[in-house]
Formats: sequence, C-alpha cells, structure tokens
Amino acid sequence: MKNIKLIIEYDGTNYSGWQKQKNANTVQAEIEKAIKKTTGEEVDLIGCSRTDKGVHATNYVASFNIESTIPGDRFTYIINNKLPKDIVIISSQEAESDFHARYSCTGKTYCYTILNRRVPSAIYRNCSYLVKEKLDVDRMAEACNYFKGTHDFEAFRTLGSSVKTTVRTIYEVKIEKQDEFIKIYVSGDGFLYNMVRIMVGVLIRVGRGKLEPEDVKKIIDSKDRNKAGKVMPPMGLKLENVFY
Amino acid sequence: MKNIKLIIEYDGTNYSGWQKQKNANTVQAEIEKAIKKTTGEEVDLIGCSRTDKGVHATNYVASFNIESTIPGDRFTYIINNKLPKDIVIISSQEAESDFHARYSCTGKTYCYTILNRRVPSAIYRNCSYLVKEKLDVDRMAEACNYFKGTHDFEAFRTLGSSVKTTVRTIYEVKIEKQDEFIKIYVSGDGFLYNMVRIMVGVLIRVGRGKLEPEDVKKIIDSKDRNKAGKVMPPMGLKLENVFY
Repeated sequence: MKNIKLIIEYDGTNYSGWQKQKNANTVQAEIEKAIKKTTGEEVDLIGCSRTDKGVHATNYVASFNIESTIPGDRFTYIINNKLPKDIVIISSQEAESDFHARYSCTGKTYCYTILNRRVPSAIYRNCSYLVKEKLDVDRMAEACNYFKGTHDFEAFRTLGSSVKTTVRTIYEVKIEKQDEFIKIYVSGDGFLYNMVRIMVGVLIRVGRGKLEPEDVKKIIDSKDRNKAGKVMPPMGLKLENVFY
Repeated sequence: MKNIKLIIEYDGTNYSGWQKQKNANTVQAEIEKAIKKTTGEEVDLIGCSRTDKGVHATNYVASFNIESTIPGDRFTYIINNKLPKDIVIISSQEAESDFHARYSCTGKTYCYTILNRRVPSAIYRNCSYLVKEKLDVDRMAEACNYFKGTHDFEAFRTLGSSVKTTVRTIYEVKIEKQDEFIKIYVSGDGFLYNMVRIMVGVLIRVGRGKLEPEDVKKIIDSKDRNKAGKVMPPMGLKLENVFY
C-alpha cells in the first residue's frame, strides 16, 4: 500500500468547494473520479482543509492510499489527463505511511486579493473582490499587526462546525499593493470557519476609515461575532500554501 | 455631436477578437450592442487595433461619435450595465473632435505571459502560455535588446493584411520573472500582424538554448519569415497600454 501526496491547484469558480457533497460538483469528487478512471481503484482522498464554494487554491495538499505499482511521481500526469482544466495536479510523490494531509498539517497561508478601483476586472473577475472605496493601505498594514500572535478568535468565525477551541496562532499578516490590486497574506497554525474572510472585512473597514487600526485588538478581545462584521466574498480568497 | 473615448479591459477567451465579423462573437460587436441598448443609437466604434481570437486587453482604447446629452464620464456605468462580465469599460470621457482611437495612436505596449513549469495553471490557464522546458531568463533578457530600435520586421509578420511598410520602431522589450511566470513587455510605435507572438517564439527558443541571443539580429536582418519560426498561442498575449 502506497501513501501518495498530491499538490493541487484549482480554480474554485465552478465548484461547491473541496469537500464531496451530494448533487454538487466538488474538487475532491473530480480528483477521486480521475484516480478511479486511471487506476480502477476507489480511493479516499484526504484534503488538508475544506474550502468554500468559489475559493481557489494554488498549493492545496491531499493524500490517499492506493494499491498500485505506479511510481509516486507518475500520478501527476495520469491524473491530469482525466481532470477538467480548472483542476491541475502540480506534483505527486510517495509519502511516509503516516503522512496525513489534514492531521500532519502544521500551518497554512491564505491570500485574499482585493481590486481597489471603480470598476471590476474583466480578466481577473473570478479571482479578485472589487472594493470601490479608496483603501488606505498603510492603515491596513498597521491593523494587520494586531492579528499576530495567539488569540481567541471567537469573534472571527461563522458558527456551524464544532471546534475544540477557538484559540489560533497567527504567524504573519502582510499586505502588498500591486497596481490596483491589494493582496493580504495570512499565515497561521489553523483557521476557524470563514476566519480569513472575516479578518479581511475588518481590514477593509480600517482601510476605508470606518475603524481605527487598534480596533482590531478590541474586536478580538470582545469575542463578539457581531463586532467583526461581514464575511467577505469567496472569489478573492486563495489557499496559497500548506505547511507540514 | 460628441466624441467619446473609452478605455476597455477584456478577457478575450470567449471572443473571436476585437473586430466585428459575421457569425462570431467579438468585443467590438458587444460594446456597440450595449451602446445601442442604453442610448438607442447605432454608433461606429473605432478600436485602436485589431486583436486576435483569445487575446486580452487591459487598457484598450476605442472612440465613437454620438448625439447624446449624456456626460462623457457617465458612459462607463451605463455601458457596463449592459455588457457581459468579460468586457469592462474602465473609463469614458469626452475627447477632442479630432481624436481617433486608431489614427491618433502613437504607440502600444503588449505583455506576453509565459508559465514556465511542468504543468499548466488551473487559475491562470486562459491568460498564460505553458512552456515546460526550463527557460534561461538572463539569456532572454540579453536577446530582448536586439529587438530595440528601428528595423524592418518583415521576418516577424504573418502575411495577409497589406501594409505600406514593414519597418517599425521598438522602444523597449523587457522581461520580468514573478515566481513561475515570465512576462515579456514589448513597446513600439506599431506592430505587424502576429509580430509580438513571433518575437516571443524567438525569445523562447533563446531561453531554451536553441538560439543565441545575437541570433535575433540575424533573423531580423534575414527578413525571412521562416527563420523567425512559429506564432505563439494567443492566450498569453495582452494589449497592456496604448499611447497618444
């Protein structure tokens, strides 16, 4: 029995997220189907994380066990041959038998892309979120610092999935301006449901002058979901990297 | 009579280029249709340039004359309301009556995006061209210099459209590496049919070690279309800027 680790890029626009669901196109289902087509085996593909409908990934990690003589690095090509163009296996390799894409994961980096101008992008419309009001990136960068460290992020999650603790450690939050695009990179040991998209909403309000940078600390301390405001739309979000 | 100048972004993936044609979706036809829907007037939209099927643009310029009381800057919003999401008017303004998007144009910048790795991109599949062989960007940068200046680019055009002269001036060719993407920016006073895509093909051969950087000069001097090789695919190409 081999344990195969895949690194995957996907455009989430046309999928109801990673996780298999009845009557919905999902990334997990597409890849399991492709593996079945090429190897004849039904595998249970373990993803590093759920991602929501419309969310993208550039280096998503998944793993699966398989009885097969195919060398680990060959899976890239044989699976890609059976996948739609919006899902691509970047690499495949045989991993240690105890490697588990979800439980072995020690951290992740997400990137949220904002387009800050008056009109949406024609070319990047599915991988950026339009904010028409002028954003002050320096203020946002200052606000980013308040997220760093270990905090109870109760205010920054959508209820629904049960978690043992709402304490998470954020390693880094950095912001980059590239022409009219603003990219927010968030790295941490783990994330609550919708956490990044709620954090981005707070940063946007700081950028618009509706909140002060130090209000981030107050919102975290309040543990009050209502204070953190809306969940920003999925198309701006991309799972960028996963650490083991 | 007003002369309105539009700046337009479009994702060329689902269009047979800019120029109106029978039985084909084109960017020009979509915008003329949107103007008709909002103003009731049939206008003749003049584009700065033809673009081929699958080629994109971020700051394409077009102009049209119209009898209308609508202020110049309002056209952005009213036309966008009637356009599909892969075409966006970035801005509109009233121009001098003698402004002509094509004849007044003094130069253009194109950008060609190469993805240099083993597998295609899921997210950027429609706006990058995959080159699997490792490219030496330093060699390509050296080769870029040979394109600069005023030359007869007879070797770098696809026959078909008649032109008075095949002499063009290239102001700049620069190359940027961003992770696995390589972007080639070409600025000049004008371009022959397929010229940029043929230039990029030569640069890729230099990057693969199939040609020496100084071979660019020899190919230009030869005026021999066969020596310049293939036209690279359209999805990597974007009309980036137009000068007046």
